[in-house]
Amino acid sequence: MPHLYPVLLCGGSGTRLWPLSRKSYPKQFVKLGDGETLFQAAAQRIAGPDVMAPVIITNSDFRFIVTEQLAEAGIDPGAILIEPRPRNTAPAILAAVQFLAARDPEALLLVMPSDQVMPDRAAFSAAVRAGLPAAADGQIVTFGIRPTRPETGYGWLELAHPPEEARPAAIPLRRFVEKPAAERAATMLADGRYLWNAGIVLMSVRTALAAFETHAPQMVTPVRRAVEEARTDLGFLRLAEEPWRLAEEISVDYAIMERSSNLQVVPFGGDWSDLGDWASVLREGEPDARGVATHGPVTAIDCEDTLLRSEADNLELVGIGLKELIVVAMPDAVLVADRDRAQDVKQAVTALKAKGVRQAENFPRDHRPWGWFETLVLGERFQVKRIVVHPGAALSLQSHFHRSEHWIVVSGTAQVTVDGEVRLLTENQSVYVPLGAIHRMENPGKVPMVLIEVQTGTYLGDDDIIRYEDVYARGQGAKG
Amino acid sequence: MPHLYPVLLCGGSGTRLWPLSRKSYPKQFVKLGDGETLFQAAAQRIAGPDVMAPVIITNSDFRFIVTEQLAEAGIDPGAILIEPRPRNTAPAILAAVQFLAARDPEALLLVMPSDQVMPDRAAFSAAVRAGLPAAADGQIVTFGIRPTRPETGYGWLELAHPPEEARPAAIPLRRFVEKPAAERAATMLADGRYLWNAGIVLMSVRTALAAFETHAPQMVTPVRRAVEEARTDLGFLRLAEEPWRLAEEISVDYAIMERSSNLQVVPFGGDWSDLGDWASVLREGEPDARGVATHGPVTAIDCEDTLLRSEADNLELVGIGLKELIVVAMPDAVLVADRDRAQDVKQAVTALKAKGVRQAENFPRDHRPWGWFETLVLGERFQVKRIVVHPGAALSLQSHFHRSEHWIVVSGTAQVTVDGEVRLLTENQSVYVPLGAIHRMENPGKVPMVLIEVQTGTYLGDDDIIRYEDVYARGQGAKG
Repeated sequence: MPHLYPVLLCGGSGTRLWPLSRKSYPKQFVKLGDGETLFQAAAQRIAGPDVMAPVIITNSDFRFIVTEQLAEAGIDPGAILIEPRPRNTAPAILAAVQFLAARDPEALLLVMPSDQVMPDRAAFSAAVRAGLPAAADGQIVTFGIRPTRPETGYGWLELAHPPEEARPAAIPLRRFVEKPAAERAATMLADGRYLWNAGIVLMSVRTALAAFETHAPQMVTPVRRAVEEARTDLGFLRLAEEPWRLAEEISVDYAIMERSSNLQVVPFGGDWSDLGDWASVLREGEPDARGVATHGPVTAIDCEDTLLRSEADNLELVGIGLKELIVVAMPDAVLVADRDRAQDVKQAVTALKAKGVRQAENFPRDHRPWGWFETLVLGERFQVKRIVVHPGAALSLQSHFHRSEHWIVVSGTAQVTVDGEVRLLTENQSVYVPLGAIHRMENPGKVPMVLIEVQTGTYLGDDDIIRYEDVYARGQGAKG
Repeated sequence: MPHLYPVLLCGGSGTRLWPLSRKSYPKQFVKLGDGETLFQAAAQRIAGPDVMAPVIITNSDFRFIVTEQLAEAGIDPGAILIEPRPRNTAPAILAAVQFLAARDPEALLLVMPSDQVMPDRAAFSAAVRAGLPAAADGQIVTFGIRPTRPETGYGWLELAHPPEEARPAAIPLRRFVEKPAAERAATMLADGRYLWNAGIVLMSVRTALAAFETHAPQMVTPVRRAVEEARTDLGFLRLAEEPWRLAEEISVDYAIMERSSNLQVVPFGGDWSDLGDWASVLREGEPDARGVATHGPVTAIDCEDTLLRSEADNLELVGIGLKELIVVAMPDAVLVADRDRAQDVKQAVTALKAKGVRQAENFPRDHRPWGWFETLVLGERFQVKRIVVHPGAALSLQSHFHRSEHWIVVSGTAQVTVDGEVRLLTENQSVYVPLGAIHRMENPGKVPMVLIEVQTGTYLGDDDIIRYEDVYARGQGAKG
């Protein structure tokens, strides 16, 4: 029995779910409901004796979010490949294929986006199992979602014949249909031979290599070199930058799929959503009889067909007399949009970015290799931060020209170094770091260390930093 | 020339402008625009050689907000009367009348709400001057706003004859019209003899006393006793609680005005609003050509007839495709309401209060006699507060059973006492207050002192406090 490797595409940074999804921490990593994140769900979607640890493809910015979320969910990754820059899906998938080809040439791979909702794992597993014979036989197997509405926002798949109702089985693909007009979508919905394209692909390493060599040969050498010359760094595999730059930026659909003839589709009848915009979150959010879906501390009075989300326990959201609206409230950003304009959130984020608004791309919490921090208050000549350091992690050895710092440990244990003197601080103990002192903060313990930092000085920017040593190999003036 | 005393009614705690106006800090004290608050504007609305320092009637909860805002605006109050409990406008005005009767029996008083918008002070001053002869002649002079729409939310005044256009002059009042139906309002708007009742009254102390004695005699003795037995407390005049309880809770309109026949009206043609709900804030907010009014960091895309307010510099608000909506965003509470449902905000606040939601009545900033504080973060077993202490002010001498505290001064100078040891801390200096230590924080300086307090312990409620001394005479377990 060949091994099956889930390959998770995790480099996306969609902005259509702003303000909850931002470039620095996009939707696959966000807790949309009360349980796991979309990425954590995707990493556990398929299981079995033949299923290997997932191979994850992400970028440098997200690498520590990926490891943090895998650790939280208790998942041991097979490999985490770091793209030096985004190149769309084709080079990313090819990199995973070549990575596996060198290790397990008989392998099958199941390529999945990491930002979809598919709650019924048993049904998905059955669909994948139904596609295995075709995949082993050299077919490229895609998965088609049974449509429930005339959706114009997705690509569709035209099958050779309507699927049978009984059990899932691979059916030859006749052709891909690009995002259709409304009338065409209605016709396809009624026809029965059309499914939504979920962007999930099952194929063997061998088939994948052959497809790329046939349809995108110019990409093969640069990506192979990027994988061969990759360097290991703190458990990540960093693809080599120079050859990677030469790989064409193109989607796997255009590069391979639409040029191949060995395509099969396994229908999937379970619940599925790509959560492509807030309107789809409203649909998936189990709205009540009046069409209202809420999340967090929300009071809805006489509302209809409306999504009301508060993303913080201490942020009270009240809606009165609303119809067909999307409201998403966070302590630093609030979106209120007509439901039918949900696709224009992207445009709003572009406008914010042009204005130089921090919230366009960044959250108050800043994730770093060693943990995260957030500014609690920024005053004139002072700043208060909450800093959380992972067990075993360390900030760089550093000094500042313009500020002194008071550190108070409020949870866990810190090992602090100030001008060469090392000591342990536990809950309720503090230390003073004078201006210019060379200092470091570490968490030698087994639980997260939480520290309140009070900075005073004339300039409090993150770039007032001289680094002397850094386990994460960051340079002068770089943050954190 | 008799003296003219502005009398400001400042005990109201309207909730129709929630979340910006809350019971603990209502709209008259809030900066709605960029300049002064409504209360500060009201305290400076009328000036002149005959105009005396204002007499302010408020309640115990607001007394330090009143003094803080007067000091900020450089206004020296004539007196600040504290109502032991709310009793509507009639007892409050009678208290001011009796307070003045004992000091300046020939005085005139100009009674004003403290939460109205009247930007044209010169026009208002001219209207008041036009009413002085009638007031000196024993008339009760009210002020009528020239109506600009068929408003059903206000009471109206019917004049004996239409006002002349040229200069303001007192005209006999024929009768009061209660909040009308829409049709009646349209008729009155067209008629020309009807004005909106602004709730502003000019009369002599002598006339006022006579009116109360004639129309509300049962109120006279309790209120006189409450004033006579009032005690002075840190510059406030606290009306005596026991007689005050006996005063009937009734508005001045019902108690006096509607029963009097010596009523005159001075028309006022300047801009005026009672900012009675968010729809009126939208009207007053100088909407653009599409009817959109914004405040703070707001991005409006394709919106119409909509109010978009962000009440914090670091809170980004985005509206897309909105029509006839009210959106008010604060870091701890967000309101989104149909514009025509603006009056129902009050109902929403009642619902929040029933749920026990803190934001129904309270702001993150908690105002105390000595200054204010806010919780920056409340974690498990720790809390971080920002504390601001007014120059010359002191917190009580106190101790806690369940927490220790780290204090870091980030602005100004603190005098701290810990177990009998007194020392001065300036910016960037800190002190540790162990569990059980008897401690006090004071600001001996001339500028506000800002301090970051990091508490750790098993219980962090404000009621874990033993008070040993308090300049504000608060008891055990009382907050702050």
